[in-house]
Amino acid sequence: MSEFDTIVIGGGVAGAAAAMYCARFNLKTLGFATLPGGLITTTHLVENYPGIKKITGPAMGQVFLEHAMETGAEYNFSTVSKIEKKHDLFVISVGDKSFTARTVIYATGTKHKHLGVKGEEEFKNKGVSYCALCDAAFFKEKTVAVIGGGDTAAIDANILAQHCKKVYILVRKDFMRAEPTNQDRIERDPKVEIKYLTEVQEICGTDKVSHVILQDGTQFDLDGIFVAIGWNSNSQLAGDLGVKLNDRKEVIINRESETNIAGFYGAGDVTDAKFKQAIIGAGEGVYASVMAYDYIQKHFR
Amino acid sequence: MSEFDTIVIGGGVAGAAAAMYCARFNLKTLGFATLPGGLITTTHLVENYPGIKKITGPAMGQVFLEHAMETGAEYNFSTVSKIEKKHDLFVISVGDKSFTARTVIYATGTKHKHLGVKGEEEFKNKGVSYCALCDAAFFKEKTVAVIGGGDTAAIDANILAQHCKKVYILVRKDFMRAEPTNQDRIERDPKVEIKYLTEVQEICGTDKVSHVILQDGTQFDLDGIFVAIGWNSNSQLAGDLGVKLNDRKEVIINRESETNIAGFYGAGDVTDAKFKQAIIGAGEGVYASVMAYDYIQKHFR
Repeated sequence: MSEFDTIVIGGGVAGAAAAMYCARFNLKTLGFATLPGGLITTTHLVENYPGIKKITGPAMGQVFLEHAMETGAEYNFSTVSKIEKKHDLFVISVGDKSFTARTVIYATGTKHKHLGVKGEEEFKNKGVSYCALCDAAFFKEKTVAVIGGGDTAAIDANILAQHCKKVYILVRKDFMRAEPTNQDRIERDPKVEIKYLTEVQEICGTDKVSHVILQDGTQFDLDGIFVAIGWNSNSQLAGDLGVKLNDRKEVIINRESETNIAGFYGAGDVTDAKFKQAIIGAGEGVYASVMAYDYIQKHFR
Repeated sequence: MSEFDTIVIGGGVAGAAAAMYCARFNLKTLGFATLPGGLITTTHLVENYPGIKKITGPAMGQVFLEHAMETGAEYNFSTVSKIEKKHDLFVISVGDKSFTARTVIYATGTKHKHLGVKGEEEFKNKGVSYCALCDAAFFKEKTVAVIGGGDTAAIDANILAQHCKKVYILVRKDFMRAEPTNQDRIERDPKVEIKYLTEVQEICGTDKVSHVILQDGTQFDLDGIFVAIGWNSNSQLAGDLGVKLNDRKEVIINRESETNIAGFYGAGDVTDAKFKQAIIGAGEGVYASVMAYDYIQKHFR
């Protein structure tokens, strides 16, 4: 059984930032990455990570992971199946193998919910996006639709209206359940138009999205589709361990990335951070690493 | 009088990150930078900003500022002399000129306290450092001294002991006032040796530090000197406005970078963040920009 100072679960921006800092603190660090580079690798272009003016999503994922590994963190590309706490140590299982660690930094991210319609996979990053905040600026003066009826859909429509010529919100039900202020704002914005009882059946185009087919068979011309039907936090292993989750099943952390379990930290999109942004996840990862270092100094040395 | 959605005071990492995000939100954004690029420009090499493996301090300051400006933020390199709130707007004075803003992001950073001894300026970044966390890794297997008697000196010595062959702490008084755990740790570490009633009179070397002269005239050989006598937050203008400061005169913010004054946010080293790191300041700046955007949407649109 291999023993580490810190095991980082997650090889995205937050996890890699944490692993890099842990290695700088000379902690014996092991990272696990099921999706090396994390969810950012599914974004076509990132222009909003402070200090890096422009980088593709895949390149960004790679540079973060390299940064961690070149600084001295080991990485393992297997999927963790279980986390337990035994006395002072965490035991991380990967199939029938076990690794122990004095501290754990949990940065497993999220999965965007998908529509599950024809054309969605094909046109991902070719008109289909799951992040308005990331991609709105690429749709200047274009016609786009947000799909969803929740608060995220309303917020996304507000963001998109700053850039686009026209923003539709396609809502499956006959009402939205956005926060009143966000709802007011979209209703006041002449660029935004809500279409209730509207479902997309198929996303169409040639090299990029040109239109969708609605469930009643009508064709609807669009340059972009922003899917905003929520995401699922990859928080199950933490929840099973007893880490407190909020009602969105996100890992609750404080400003220093501590959870309710001593020595167990959260970072990145899996946490209850109000905004899911790479830079915020990286900051949380670094806070987690500093706290892990401090915890080890106090409890094991 | 020019009116802006957001005025960012500070052109370092945190301020520039905030300004870049504000510009992405299509907020009319003006930044003020007395020291363009901020304090990071005084660091020789940065290897711990996640995603940028290696960059000089000056280059890092420049890329952050360019990122903000190319995204659409204006920058002004004058020094702000006063911040007032008049009705719903903040009024920022620069000499006899005034600018108004709906929101302010305050990211003015800190100034490291200097020893004020001969050789200190000359050997800055040539053996003299003000940040152990940033620079410890450059002193592997070297002999260094931390100068200071507070908690920062103890923490720095612990960090340095992970890398260096020998770490002295030179304390002016006959006692230290570090936190007990940090004090215990340095006293237990065989690499760390505390010398009380010891003051440096001069820092000497040729192209880099080779030794210091102590006040009793003795020569003391050292490869590096880490000045840890504290820093001063550049928080005065915020304090004058009524922003709550802690007992270190740092701007108190919450996890979303809000201060006690609505529409006024803090970010970076000037805040009460437990760790003064570029990545943490950048994250705070981004949080501030998202909150500023949200505040403007709610109160002005």
